[in-house]
Amino acid sequence: MTLDAVTDFIHANRDRYVRELTEYLAIPSISALPDHAADVARCAEWTAAELKRVGLENVRLIETPGNPVVYGDWLHAEGAPTILFYGHYDVQPVDPVGQWESPPFEATVRQGEIYARGAADDKGQIFMHFKAVEACLREGGRLPVNIRLILEGEEEVGSTHLDGFVREHEDELAADVVVISDTPMFDRGVPSICYGLRGLTYCQIDVRGTASDLHSGSFGGAVANPAFVLAQLLAQMKDRGGRVKIPGFYDDVRPLSDAERAEFAKLPFDERRYRSELEAPKLFGETGFTTLERLWGRPTFEVNGVLAGFTGEGAKTVIPATAMAKVSMRLVPDQDPAKIGELFEAYARKVAPKTVDVTVTRMHTGKPWMTDFDNPFVRAAGRAMETGFGQAPVFNREGGSIPVVATFQEVLGLPAVLFGVGLPDENAHAPNEKLDLGNFHNGIVASAALYREIGALGG
Amino acid sequence: MTLDAVTDFIHANRDRYVRELTEYLAIPSISALPDHAADVARCAEWTAAELKRVGLENVRLIETPGNPVVYGDWLHAEGAPTILFYGHYDVQPVDPVGQWESPPFEATVRQGEIYARGAADDKGQIFMHFKAVEACLREGGRLPVNIRLILEGEEEVGSTHLDGFVREHEDELAADVVVISDTPMFDRGVPSICYGLRGLTYCQIDVRGTASDLHSGSFGGAVANPAFVLAQLLAQMKDRGGRVKIPGFYDDVRPLSDAERAEFAKLPFDERRYRSELEAPKLFGETGFTTLERLWGRPTFEVNGVLAGFTGEGAKTVIPATAMAKVSMRLVPDQDPAKIGELFEAYARKVAPKTVDVTVTRMHTGKPWMTDFDNPFVRAAGRAMETGFGQAPVFNREGGSIPVVATFQEVLGLPAVLFGVGLPDENAHAPNEKLDLGNFHNGIVASAALYREIGALGG
Repeated sequence: MTLDAVTDFIHANRDRYVRELTEYLAIPSISALPDHAADVARCAEWTAAELKRVGLENVRLIETPGNPVVYGDWLHAEGAPTILFYGHYDVQPVDPVGQWESPPFEATVRQGEIYARGAADDKGQIFMHFKAVEACLREGGRLPVNIRLILEGEEEVGSTHLDGFVREHEDELAADVVVISDTPMFDRGVPSICYGLRGLTYCQIDVRGTASDLHSGSFGGAVANPAFVLAQLLAQMKDRGGRVKIPGFYDDVRPLSDAERAEFAKLPFDERRYRSELEAPKLFGETGFTTLERLWGRPTFEVNGVLAGFTGEGAKTVIPATAMAKVSMRLVPDQDPAKIGELFEAYARKVAPKTVDVTVTRMHTGKPWMTDFDNPFVRAAGRAMETGFGQAPVFNREGGSIPVVATFQEVLGLPAVLFGVGLPDENAHAPNEKLDLGNFHNGIVASAALYREIGALGG
Repeated sequence: MTLDAVTDFIHANRDRYVRELTEYLAIPSISALPDHAADVARCAEWTAAELKRVGLENVRLIETPGNPVVYGDWLHAEGAPTILFYGHYDVQPVDPVGQWESPPFEATVRQGEIYARGAADDKGQIFMHFKAVEACLREGGRLPVNIRLILEGEEEVGSTHLDGFVREHEDELAADVVVISDTPMFDRGVPSICYGLRGLTYCQIDVRGTASDLHSGSFGGAVANPAFVLAQLLAQMKDRGGRVKIPGFYDDVRPLSDAERAEFAKLPFDERRYRSELEAPKLFGETGFTTLERLWGRPTFEVNGVLAGFTGEGAKTVIPATAMAKVSMRLVPDQDPAKIGELFEAYARKVAPKTVDVTVTRMHTGKPWMTDFDNPFVRAAGRAMETGFGQAPVFNREGGSIPVVATFQEVLGLPAVLFGVGLPDENAHAPNEKLDLGNFHNGIVASAALYREIGALGG
C-alpha cells in the first residue's frame, strides 16, 4: 500500500463522503435532553453499522449505565504500535434554534462549509477517521497500524460514565497512544497539534425566596428578590479585573513560564480580527495576561445561563419565587475540579444572604491536561498533519475541555495526540455550527498519514 | 327602594353570581400576550353584553389604538352625584402554569374561595359592581346615584391608551368621584379603604456581548460574558441595606410623617405570620423602616425577570451572546416616573462596561397617588364598607399601582375612592389566584350601600 493510492482514493470519493456525513448529521443525538434518548440510541447503532461498513472488526455497542460506547478494532499490524482512537457521537442542544440559518439537522453546504449541529464537534471529525480507515483497507487490504476505536455518547454531558468504562475495560483498551480529533486548528490555514486542554467544573445555583411568585407592588420592599440576590451572588464571583474571587481558586494554578508565554506571542494571532469576527465591542479578560494566555493558561468563571421570573414579551410585575443560574469554571493544571467545586459551593453559601435558600448542584467535572510535546507520537502527528495540509503545524493549547484525555493518562498511562481539524469560528456549541470541507478532506489524508507515521515508529 | 330588599335579593342570588363569574373567568383575556388578542376582544364583548343584561344604558365598546374600553351608564338620579366607576377586564399571564393546582381559566371553588386568573384582579371585583347595579335596578327599578362605568383592557400592560382615552372623552366622563375596586383589604376580616398607591417605572435591559453564543471553553476568558455583566449591573442598583443606588432616586420622595408612621404602627399587622405565610426564610427591606412603611411609603427596585443562555435541563457550556432583565421601580409621592426612568437609564449606561452593548427600553410608567381621607366620598365609602362587612374599615395605603387614579385626578380633577375587597394572599399576578366568596358577596352588598351613601351626599 502506498499513501499515494490511498490519497487518490480519498480524492476520488469526496462527494460520497459529504453525502454519508450528511446522513450521520441528520440524527439529532442530543445527550443533554432526555427527549432525544431514542435519537442517541439510533446514532450509536448508525455509528456501529458504519464501523462495520468501513471494514473494522469486533464492532459492538458496549453498554454503560448511560449511553453505549461504540467499539471497533483492526489488530493485524504485527510489530506496529496500537492507536486507541477516541471520539463522541453525541451533540450539543440547538437552542436558540431560531438563530440557525438552515435547520440544524439538515446538513447544508454553503461556500465550502457544511452547516449542521455536530459538523465540527465531533461527528465530522470522527467521520474523517472512519473514511481514512476505509481508504487504507480498500486500497491496501490492511492498515499500517493497529487501531481500536471507541466512540462515546455522553461527551456533551460530561462523559459521566466513560471514566468507569475505561477502568472496567482496561485490558480491551490496551494501546500505545490515544488519538483524538475534537479540537480546532489554531486558525484557518494554520494546522496545529494541541498539547494542552483546560478542565471544567460545572454547577447550578438555585435561589428560593418565597413559596410562590409575588406581586411586585403588593410585596415589593418587604422580601428579598431571588433574582436580585442571584445577581449579587454572581457579581461577587469576579472582580473588576476579571479575577475570580473564590478563596483558594488560584492556589494550584501552574504559572505560565516565560518560555511558553514567548511561544504564544510568536503565534500568528490577530487580536483585532478576532474581536471583529466575534463582533464584540471590546475584548475583556484577566488583567496582566494576553488573550491567548487567558484562553489557554488561565482559569475562568463563566455564567452559562440564567432564568428567573417573567421573561416573555411585555411586562409582568412579579417578584420571582426562585432564580436559577448555570455556571462553570475552566481549569488549568494543576487545579483539581472536585476541590474547585467545593471552594465554589462554600463561597456561594458564605456570600448568600439569610433571606433566601440557596442550593448548589455540582453537575460535572473534567481534569485539565498537558503533554510533553517532544514525545515521538506528537512528532509523528506533526509530520502527518504536514502531509495532509501541505505545511508544518504549530503546537498550541486549547481553552476547551476533553476530560477523558486526563482519564486515559491516569488509568491507561497513555500519551495523547490531539489531532483536530476544526476551526475556531465553526460555532461548536452555538447556532450555525459548521465544518470546512477542505479541512475535512485534508484531515482524511492526514489521518491516513498518521496511521502510517505511527505504524513506522515500531512496536 | 330599601337597602334591605336589595340585600335580600343579593343573598338569594349567591349561587347564580358564582356561576356567571365562572363564565367570565373562563375567557383568557391576557393583554400582555399577543396570542391572546382574540380572547381580549371576546372578553370586551362579553363585558358589554353583561352591562346590558344588568340594566345599564348606552353600553358600547369605545375603540382606542389598543384594546377597547367598555362603557355603560345610568344617569337618571336627578340631584344626586355621579360616580365614574373604573375597572379592567384584562388579566395577567399565567406562567409558570405548572404551579396552578387547578386550570387558571376553569374557575374552581375550594373552601369558600374561587380560584382562577382574574378572580381578584380584577374581574371578580368589577363583577361585584355589575351585580350591585343589577340588584338595585331589579328591586327598585332605579339607582340611588348616577353612574358611568368604564372597563379597560390594558391595565396589566400599563394602561397604555387610557390616558389618551380619558383626555379625549373628558366630557362623557363628567362625574363627581371615581370608584375603583382593584385593591386588597388590609387583611382577612379587616375591611379597609385605601388612600394611597405607589407608582411604577418598568424597563427592560438587554446586554449584547458577541454576535452569537460562544463555546465557554474555546472563548472563556477572552470576552465579557453578558450574563455576568448583567448580574454586575443589577447588583449595583441596590446596596446591602436595600437602598437604591441610582443617583437622584430619592430626591423627590415625600418623607413619611411621624403621624402616619404612628398610624401604620397601630394596624393589626403580624410580621411573624406574614413571613410564615410567604414561606420566606427572613423578611428583608430598606434599613430604618418597618415592613408596612417599606411596602406603602418607600420606593423599590425589583428584578421581575432574567433570561440568558442555556436554561434547560442538564449542562451546556456556552457564553451567551445576550442577556435580558426586566426590572421595575415602585414609586411614592412625589417621584415622577418619567424622571426615574431617565435616572435609571443614565445610571445603567454609566455602570455598564464598554465590553458590551446595553439597551434600555422603558416599557411603562404610572404615577404614585395619595388622597386626603377626610373628603366626604372617602367617609361615605367607609360607612358603605361597614354596611357590607359589619365592621368599620381601617384606612391604609397600598404597595401596588393603579396609574389611572393619578390620571383621573390630573385630567378630570376627580377624587378617588379605592373600594377593594381582595385579600393580600390572593395571588394576584401569581399562580393560584383566588377570591374569597364571602368577601365577594359582602362586597356586592357594600357596593349597593356605596351607591346609596354617595347618592345621599346630594349633587
